[in-house]
Amino acid sequence: MSIVPAERTREIDTALRARAARVVPGGMHGHLDAAFLPPEYPQFFERGEGCRLWDVDGNEYVDLMCSWGPILLGYRHPEVERAAAEQAAVGDVLNGPTPLMVELAETFVDQVPHADWTMFCKNGTDATTMGVVVARSATGRRKVLIARGSYHGIASWSTRVDAPGTTPEDHANTVYFEYNDLPSLEAAVAEAGAKDVAAVVVTPIRHDLRSDLEPPTQAFAEGLRAICDRVGAALLLDDIRGGLRLGMGGSWEELGVRPDLSAWSKAIANGHALAVLLGSEPWREGANAVFATGSFWMAAAPMAASLATLRILREGDGLEQMRRAGERLQQGLREQGRSHGLEINVSGPPQLPFLSFAGDHMNQRAMVWAGECAKNGVYLHPYHNWFISAAHDDSSIDRALEGTDEAFRTIRSKDGAD
Amino acid sequence: MSIVPAERTREIDTALRARAARVVPGGMHGHLDAAFLPPEYPQFFERGEGCRLWDVDGNEYVDLMCSWGPILLGYRHPEVERAAAEQAAVGDVLNGPTPLMVELAETFVDQVPHADWTMFCKNGTDATTMGVVVARSATGRRKVLIARGSYHGIASWSTRVDAPGTTPEDHANTVYFEYNDLPSLEAAVAEAGAKDVAAVVVTPIRHDLRSDLEPPTQAFAEGLRAICDRVGAALLLDDIRGGLRLGMGGSWEELGVRPDLSAWSKAIANGHALAVLLGSEPWREGANAVFATGSFWMAAAPMAASLATLRILREGDGLEQMRRAGERLQQGLREQGRSHGLEINVSGPPQLPFLSFAGDHMNQRAMVWAGECAKNGVYLHPYHNWFISAAHDDSSIDRALEGTDEAFRTIRSKDGAD
Repeated sequence: MSIVPAERTREIDTALRARAARVVPGGMHGHLDAAFLPPEYPQFFERGEGCRLWDVDGNEYVDLMCSWGPILLGYRHPEVERAAAEQAAVGDVLNGPTPLMVELAETFVDQVPHADWTMFCKNGTDATTMGVVVARSATGRRKVLIARGSYHGIASWSTRVDAPGTTPEDHANTVYFEYNDLPSLEAAVAEAGAKDVAAVVVTPIRHDLRSDLEPPTQAFAEGLRAICDRVGAALLLDDIRGGLRLGMGGSWEELGVRPDLSAWSKAIANGHALAVLLGSEPWREGANAVFATGSFWMAAAPMAASLATLRILREGDGLEQMRRAGERLQQGLREQGRSHGLEINVSGPPQLPFLSFAGDHMNQRAMVWAGECAKNGVYLHPYHNWFISAAHDDSSIDRALEGTDEAFRTIRSKDGAD
Repeated sequence: MSIVPAERTREIDTALRARAARVVPGGMHGHLDAAFLPPEYPQFFERGEGCRLWDVDGNEYVDLMCSWGPILLGYRHPEVERAAAEQAAVGDVLNGPTPLMVELAETFVDQVPHADWTMFCKNGTDATTMGVVVARSATGRRKVLIARGSYHGIASWSTRVDAPGTTPEDHANTVYFEYNDLPSLEAAVAEAGAKDVAAVVVTPIRHDLRSDLEPPTQAFAEGLRAICDRVGAALLLDDIRGGLRLGMGGSWEELGVRPDLSAWSKAIANGHALAVLLGSEPWREGANAVFATGSFWMAAAPMAASLATLRILREGDGLEQMRRAGERLQQGLREQGRSHGLEINVSGPPQLPFLSFAGDHMNQRAMVWAGECAKNGVYLHPYHNWFISAAHDDSSIDRALEGTDEAFRTIRSKDGAD
C-alpha cells in the first residue's frame, strides 16, 4: 500500500455533497461537517478497518480521529462485532432489558471505583445532561458550574449563551469558571450562591476546541473536590472523551480524585451507540426519582459490544498500546517540527494527542497543514484533539508520520514562496 | 405452542431483579421499568421473533407493545437485519456519513410531502428537542406550546413542571393548551404573546398516559395550522409513535394538514437506533444555524436498516396488514367485553390500539386484567397505548384474543367473589 497515491480523486464525494445540499441543511450538520475542515478532506466515507479508513472515492487514510473517539480497538474489531451480531441474532430492542444490562452495570461498578450504580443511555449529551438532572434532583438546587470553553454536548444548559435556538432561560442556571483556576471556581460558587450549586461539571483534561490540551493540576482537581464537598454539590466528571483511553477506572483515578457522577460514552462499545451515567451511593436516590428513558436505551447488541470491549481492554494490552502509539506519534511530530524548523506545540496525553502551530491565528496554518496531511493519507483535525486506538501499531504510526512530514515540508516550501 | 403454559416460572427474572437493584437506581429506570406494571410481568427478556417475545424464564408472549413502537415489521426481520449487518461489515460509525445518509434523506424527502430536508439523530427526544431549537433559531422567539398531558420525550422543556431535577427556568418558556380545544390554544397564544411563539408541538392523535386515545378533529388540526400561519410559529408534529404506522407521509396527511417540522423515531429502522427531524423549506436556514450532533448520529448500519424498512413498507402490504390486525384485535376485544358483560373502552387507531375499563380509578382494574393477560401469554400495557406490527397475522391476533378472553373471565369471576 502507498499512503501517497499519485492521484487522489474526489468525484463521488463531490456528487454526494451536491445531493446532500438539497436534503440536509447546509449539506451536513454537527461535528462531522467537512465544511469545518480544509477542502482536501472528504465528507463521505465507505469503510473502516483497524486504524484505516477509506472515503467514498477509495482514498485511504491512517485515521487519527477514530471517528472522534468511539473507535477504541480499531474499526470492525472481530470479537466486538461478533458479540454484537450474536446478541442481535437473538434480541436487541425488546420490551425490557436483557441480562446483559445487569452484567454490564456490574462490570462498570466493579471497574470504576467511584461508581455504585449505572444508568445507560445513547448519546454523550444524554449522559452529561442526565448527570445534571440527577444532581439537581438529589440536591433540590438549580445551578451548574462549567469551565468556560468546555464542551459537554448539545443540550442548551452547556451551549454558548448566543447559540442559535437557545433562550436566556436555558442558560440562566449555568455559571462559568476557568479550568485549572480555583479562585475563578470560588467566584463562580459565590455568584451562584453556595447553597444553590447542584453540580460542578468538568472534563478530566482541558480539551477545548482551538486550544492546546492542558492537564489538570493536582491542586485544581483536589480543590474542586473539596469545594464540592464543602457546598454539597456533585462533582460530575465528563469523561466522554477520556473514559477508557485514560484508564479503566475513570480519568482522574491517577490523581486520586473521585467524582460523584461520571458520564461515559464514545469508546465504551467500540463504535456501537451507548452511553452511561455512573454514580456513587449518596446520589442513588436522586437518580431514582428521575424519569430518564429512550426507545433504544436498553438495546442489547451495543451492551454485548461494550462487554466485549471492556473484557478485551481488561485482558489485553490495549491501554498500553494506545499510550505507546500516541507517544511514538507525539515524539515523531516533535522531531519533525524541529527538523523543519517549525514552532509547533504537541499537547495532550498520548491517547488524545493534538498539534498546533505557535501564534497560529484562527488555526489558519494548521488548516493548511492538515489539508496536506489528508492529501498524504493521514486523517487528523486542525483544531480538535485527535484520538488513538489500540489498533495503531508502530507501522501505522510511522506511515502517518511519513504523511505529516511531507505536509510540514510543503508548509515550509510555501513559507519560502511567500 | 400453547400460550397458556401449565406453569409460568419467574426464577431467573427474580434473581436478575435482585442483582439489578444493586447496580441500577430502583433496579430499572424509564418506561421499561416493570415496577410500573402488574407483578405478573417480567422485567428481563431473552429474545424476540416476529410478533413473539420470550422472557428470561422462557415464557412466551404474543407482543402487543412491539418494544413500545420500534418493532414495525416484527422482531429480527430477516431483510432488515441483513441490510444492517451487511453495512456493519463494511463501516458503521466513521469520520463522516456514508452515502446511505443521502439516500435515506432523499427517501424521506420523497416520501413525506411536507419535508424538504432531514436531520438524523438517535433518540425521539433528540428529534423533538431539535425541532424546538430549530423553530427558535428560525424565529428568534422563545415560547413553545404543548398540549397538557402530552409526552414529547424527557427533555425538560416538555416534562412536568414538578419533574425531579428540573428547574423553574426549564419550564419558563412552555405554555399549555388542551388537545382538540382551539379556544385553549388561542388562550395559550395570548398567554405566550403571539410574537413570542416559536412552535406549537402536537402529537397526531391524543395518546396520553392513562387516557383513552382520541383522534384530532378536522377543525382542531386545521385551526392549529391556521394559528401557526397567523402568528408565524412552526407547527411541529411529534410523529414518534404514529410515524409510518399511520401512513408513510406523516400521520396528518389524511387530514390534509401539513406540519412545518416533524419528529420521527421508534419504527423508522425497525428497532435500530435512529430518529430524524424533517422540515420544510422555510425552516432550512434556521436549522442550518443550529449545531446539532452526536457521536453515533451518522452510524450507517441503522440507516441501512431504515432504508430496508421503508422499502419493505413501500413495496409490501405492511401498512394494510397492521391496520387489519389491529382491527381484528379491537373487534375481538369489543366482542369479549360484551360477552362478559364488562364496560370497556377500546380506543385508538387500529395500529395503536388501547383498552380501558369504564370508571377505572387509576387503572386498577386494567392492572389486574393486564396481569392476567401476561399470565396467559399476551404482553400489553394497562395504561399506555399498544403497538401493532406487520408481523401480527390473524392467527397471532386470535391467540392474543384467547389470552385476553381468559383474563376477562378471571376479572369476572373475581367480581363475583367480591
